[in-house]
Amino acid sequence: MYTLFIANKNYSSWSLRPWALMRELGIPFEEKIAPFGSDSNWDEFRSFNPAGKVPCLHASKAVDVVWDSLAIIEYLAERHAGVWPTDGKARTWARCAAAEMHSGFTAIRQTCPMHVGFRIQMPATSAAFNHDIARLNELWNQGLDQFGGPFLAGAKFTAIDAFFAPVVFRAQSYGLALNEKSAAYAQHLLQTNAMQQWQSEALTESWREPGHEQAALAAGNLLADLRA
Amino acid sequence: MYTLFIANKNYSSWSLRPWALMRELGIPFEEKIAPFGSDSNWDEFRSFNPAGKVPCLHASKAVDVVWDSLAIIEYLAERHAGVWPTDGKARTWARCAAAEMHSGFTAIRQTCPMHVGFRIQMPATSAAFNHDIARLNELWNQGLDQFGGPFLAGAKFTAIDAFFAPVVFRAQSYGLALNEKSAAYAQHLLQTNAMQQWQSEALTESWREPGHEQAALAAGNLLADLRA
Ligand SMILES: N[C@@H](CCC(=O)N[C@@H](CS)C(=O)NCC(=O)O)C(=O)O
Ligand SMILES: N[C@@H](CCC(=O)N[C@@H](CS)C(=O)NCC(=O)O)C(=O)O
Repeated sequence: MYTLFIANKNYSSWSLRPWALMRELGIPFEEKIAPFGSDSNWDEFRSFNPAGKVPCLHASKAVDVVWDSLAIIEYLAERHAGVWPTDGKARTWARCAAAEMHSGFTAIRQTCPMHVGFRIQMPATSAAFNHDIARLNELWNQGLDQFGGPFLAGAKFTAIDAFFAPVVFRAQSYGLALNEKSAAYAQHLLQTNAMQQWQSEALTESWREPGHEQAALAAGNLLADLRA
Repeated sequence: MYTLFIANKNYSSWSLRPWALMRELGIPFEEKIAPFGSDSNWDEFRSFNPAGKVPCLHASKAVDVVWDSLAIIEYLAERHAGVWPTDGKARTWARCAAAEMHSGFTAIRQTCPMHVGFRIQMPATSAAFNHDIARLNELWNQGLDQFGGPFLAGAKFTAIDAFFAPVVFRAQSYGLALNEKSAAYAQHLLQTNAMQQWQSEALTESWREPGHEQAALAAGNLLADLRA
């Protein structure tokens, strides 16, 4: 049995990746939420993760401690079918796109922190931000064209969709300039059971952490807060 | 036959990862160097990499284009023995550490850009920087203790050593505060054939790119430039 440590669903983008994958593939796990505090979370998160972060997966009663979202995906890929596409070309593409996301898209990440409940209108954006959005559209369109959709690497939800799930919530919250094909993909992903469940749980959470609220508000004008 | 696209050996930290792995494992490849220009390298790097970056691996006459250092490692792991440790516990640990490096240690990365030739004395460092150094020492010591050294995940050079190879050059250039066990590991890695070859080729390169030179100089006082 797996235990997955995550933080608040409204804020925690990296937590969403393994959570969405395990839900969509039907891999059972117990969820433990460690809500963000207003100070450093280092001490608290260190109780389950040596890197002091979320997410973290414990397997076989914490004999295996797997402490990074991409490493969790590869750990699961060694043990469960369907994590990566079975087609070699699609799998190579998906791994490249996931690793690019893991180490990049910093302008989108910094400007638009994930906040499932907010709807924000952004002012004119920076060149670096526009560069990231252009690359995102190009990358998604390439996957959708090459592997036939409606998911990024073909007919089924795989790890690469889990990796871009936080970006899809950002697109919804901040009105990111997706092109037609990318917007249709984002809508499709939002309709999955995993995304629907995460969203409704995010919207009914009672935690509010001022630092995360302010970081999201700094991106533009608040149009709505859909949280309960 | 593989073609590996990299940038200047003196500067390009991400290029070093797959290069060092392939050299140490004896996987043959043709090397193509695209030196950094003073402006954006987007247009030039796009000619071989859709993400506009280095490194990028082309396999089977560019039928497979593998465009991120971590994805290159997983691509090679599907095709060659010895990329990751064979022991399951060591492999899980190595993948976690590699993914943590891929998405983190941003203070070290930003403050100390890789510059093989420089020796720089750093002034007092920030809390975020010290946090990264403490985590680095802890992580390396954990691997060395748990798997017996002299490499991070045991007796052999694997992908996790390739992933930290750029940090080892930074430690040498900027005198990073490694503890005794970590310093011994860094020395051991520097003695490998791959690191010796990369270093000597970095020191004899003729390219100088002002932006990269200045970013390194901004970290502290230049003590020496060992380049030819
Ligand atoms: N490389 C890690 C990054 C995880 C990460 O940065 N998580 C954030 C929250 S989504 C975190 O825990 N930050 C620590 C903090 O906020 O104190 C992964 O992919 O799992
Ligand atoms: N996620 C990529 C990151 C690669 C990366 O950022 N490479 C740098 C150089 S070491 C680069 O090409 N930057 C583009 C530029 O400087 O124009 C990977 O791991 O391969």
